[in-house]
Amino acid sequence: MLTERVAAFIERELLLAPRQKVVVGVSGGPDSLCLLHCLCALGYAPLAAHLDHRLRPHSWRDAQTVLRVARRLGVPAVVQRLQPGSLKDTPGSLEEAARAVRYQFLVEEARRWGTDRIATGHTADDQAETVVMHFLRGAGVSGLGGMRPRTPMDTWSSFETTQDVELVRPLLEIRRDQTVAYCREVGLRPRQDPTNRDTTFRRNRIRHELLPSLATYNPGIVDVLQRTSRVMQEADEWTAGQVRAAVPRVVIAAEPRAVVLQRKAFLAEPAPIQAGLVASAARHLRPGLRDFGFEAVEAFRTFVARAGQGHRIQLPGGLELVDEGDVIRLMRLGEAAVVSGWPQLVSASGERLPVPGRLDLQAGAAIYAGEPEVPPRDVRGAGPGLAVNAWVDASRLSEPLTVRPPRPGDRMRPLGMRGRRKIADVFNSMRIPPPARAMWPVIWSGERVVWLVGLRIGDDFRLESTTREGIRLQLKGLEYLP
Amino acid sequence: MLTERVAAFIERELLLAPRQKVVVGVSGGPDSLCLLHCLCALGYAPLAAHLDHRLRPHSWRDAQTVLRVARRLGVPAVVQRLQPGSLKDTPGSLEEAARAVRYQFLVEEARRWGTDRIATGHTADDQAETVVMHFLRGAGVSGLGGMRPRTPMDTWSSFETTQDVELVRPLLEIRRDQTVAYCREVGLRPRQDPTNRDTTFRRNRIRHELLPSLATYNPGIVDVLQRTSRVMQEADEWTAGQVRAAVPRVVIAAEPRAVVLQRKAFLAEPAPIQAGLVASAARHLRPGLRDFGFEAVEAFRTFVARAGQGHRIQLPGGLELVDEGDVIRLMRLGEAAVVSGWPQLVSASGERLPVPGRLDLQAGAAIYAGEPEVPPRDVRGAGPGLAVNAWVDASRLSEPLTVRPPRPGDRMRPLGMRGRRKIADVFNSMRIPPPARAMWPVIWSGERVVWLVGLRIGDDFRLESTTREGIRLQLKGLEYLP
Repeated sequence: MLTERVAAFIERELLLAPRQKVVVGVSGGPDSLCLLHCLCALGYAPLAAHLDHRLRPHSWRDAQTVLRVARRLGVPAVVQRLQPGSLKDTPGSLEEAARAVRYQFLVEEARRWGTDRIATGHTADDQAETVVMHFLRGAGVSGLGGMRPRTPMDTWSSFETTQDVELVRPLLEIRRDQTVAYCREVGLRPRQDPTNRDTTFRRNRIRHELLPSLATYNPGIVDVLQRTSRVMQEADEWTAGQVRAAVPRVVIAAEPRAVVLQRKAFLAEPAPIQAGLVASAARHLRPGLRDFGFEAVEAFRTFVARAGQGHRIQLPGGLELVDEGDVIRLMRLGEAAVVSGWPQLVSASGERLPVPGRLDLQAGAAIYAGEPEVPPRDVRGAGPGLAVNAWVDASRLSEPLTVRPPRPGDRMRPLGMRGRRKIADVFNSMRIPPPARAMWPVIWSGERVVWLVGLRIGDDFRLESTTREGIRLQLKGLEYLP
Repeated sequence: MLTERVAAFIERELLLAPRQKVVVGVSGGPDSLCLLHCLCALGYAPLAAHLDHRLRPHSWRDAQTVLRVARRLGVPAVVQRLQPGSLKDTPGSLEEAARAVRYQFLVEEARRWGTDRIATGHTADDQAETVVMHFLRGAGVSGLGGMRPRTPMDTWSSFETTQDVELVRPLLEIRRDQTVAYCREVGLRPRQDPTNRDTTFRRNRIRHELLPSLATYNPGIVDVLQRTSRVMQEADEWTAGQVRAAVPRVVIAAEPRAVVLQRKAFLAEPAPIQAGLVASAARHLRPGLRDFGFEAVEAFRTFVARAGQGHRIQLPGGLELVDEGDVIRLMRLGEAAVVSGWPQLVSASGERLPVPGRLDLQAGAAIYAGEPEVPPRDVRGAGPGLAVNAWVDASRLSEPLTVRPPRPGDRMRPLGMRGRRKIADVFNSMRIPPPARAMWPVIWSGERVVWLVGLRIGDDFRLESTTREGIRLQLKGLEYLP
């Protein structure tokens, strides 16, 4: 009966192909033993994997239980023991660290065992606890969806390239007491209290105090929350599809370190799509981001709606939002070195720019210097935004030209101005975001600025009516020119 | 400060126009007194309305408080006292009855006072309680949205034509203790325990036990739930728009007593749209329906997906779902008399059909009998579905023709068949839903069936090669012919 329900769930949610290999995380408790037994009974090829965190004395008994059951079922098993205290140096709470290490272990075993599936014994009761936890913390549709039947492992952050492995939860609609009964029926003896190490203090209180209290209001609370999670998952999945469909309307560029949005298009979207776009953009820049909640989304939306009322704010997760007029740029905070959409040097150490010749910038962009030639008659000054062309007087240049970022205090004489100005002030007046300035390319002739690339020509090198030979400097290959 | 926040909320949610008249439900407690005072301070024109349910001794003191405060503020006030015990005869719980009477009172006062707005003092704490109640009961996106800042009064069921009045809740983002503090500041003395009569035992427990307990997990729980409700309202509003857009794709007919859906089109919609369509259809048929939850939606979807596996089920709210092959019909249960989309008599008592002449059916449909004339050569038998034309041999008819529904046991000889069959069996073979049968028009000549309208011609009256004069019978004006 239980195996049939599990089989139906696996089929409905496409969790496993028939006879597929799967690494099962087995703690030794009733849920995971039930899962292991079920998967055997249903003809899958499980590997029982147990990580002994050695956080408690006698934890090896859990491992022994797992090995004994695996032997009885005739399935391979692997146990890994952590060095005592090895978790203490990791950042974050002990529980989070233990979980991260455990999942990493499961993923590695999956690779070794030659499968892309790992399975855990999370039940409907775990789901109810998760939904309640999210409800208490404040959650939208996605959060109230709780645990998904299948989850690509990249959403577990901290691992780099784990997209290939999926975590599946075949018991997600089974009650915990049903797994206990199942173990009894098939003669398995789970560990009495194989302290689910996933279980933080908070979760324990929710399990042992809050959910029983909620059951006095509604005895069917676990079933209700399991259905709530399912409805929310459906709504979330659908919304996610609509958000993906909105991306081309709203997002101009999604680079590894910046996402650029069109303000008007963003504001034209309905609120849930806006929220989804914000969350996607944030996750794009910070794949492991977990605490990008209501306030952040609200702050983002308010910022975008109030054009010009302030031109940058910080958001949770180490993100920064920059108002650039018609477009809004979401960036990783403090990553001055690489800013997409702006010209950025590969190295700060100073490079030669041959004439004629080129110098490669980051992200496929480059600066070109042309052959000396008769300059065109009407060369206009730069309008707003980046100028991709600059003509300078060849006769005034002293080669070799060098290209390096501005240093604090560096000055230049912008075209048409008498005095010298700090390059920082030029950046300010052009509203160039500070993270983009540190690697901004500046072309120097000796100690004088020839071209603050894309922004200002040095007045010392401007074309005169008497100029016979000019050099054309060009900025090419920027994906997005504001 | 509080008045400014209320003003901003009223503006953001478009609750009231400047200086608009509004009937305020005032219990005498801090929330409603605060609301009354605020609305005065903000320049609106409130009328204080108090209903004394006389459910407790000394309830008149609440009324006195309301009248005293209104006098002090210089606003008109009205108090209505129920007859003691007058609520006891109403169906449902006492609380529900009290609430229904109270809102009816407010709506009536609004009409009298010449406004389309009534206001209540629901706070962010009430909202949190509502969200928790819905969460415990099992709710989707819409339910977790809790109370809306504005609600058309027709959603309060039980009243017939109240769409013109809207209920607004200007304090929905204000905390309860802030209303208490406000009253203290402006020198109002609310009733100590003006037992919010909206407060059922369940809600009282949630207020006094559960929410304080949840606050031990998250001290900001009320704010969190207020934001949850807002996010859910946004998601719900957007989904509702998408559901409305899906209606023309899926719904063939939405009559007062039946909604007809295209099966394939329904199945092609994503799950949240399906759920929304089901809920809309149910509310369309039963405007006051409140308990059409998960299971009903799930049952509906399962029913539609499993074509032919059973051809009718009952749903909560007195609804019935009928499988008609390519279409699915949702009907009010037991309302056999009027079924949209099928030909239905106005009266069961038997009517004359003159030749030539017409007989009106329900919903604008009619049966026509033509002049006797030479019949066409090739009259085909009816294919699947309703036949709107029937030719019969004029010489065999004995006038007057009568039209009445079939009675149990009535038989006919369908065209081309030797024996006589029960009309009920003909209905079965044609899959006519039973609710449509009781008022189905049958044309009789004496005791013999001339035409089971739309379905079968009586063999006794069939055209022969020797027929010189035929009569054309027609069914016209049915909105939907399956």
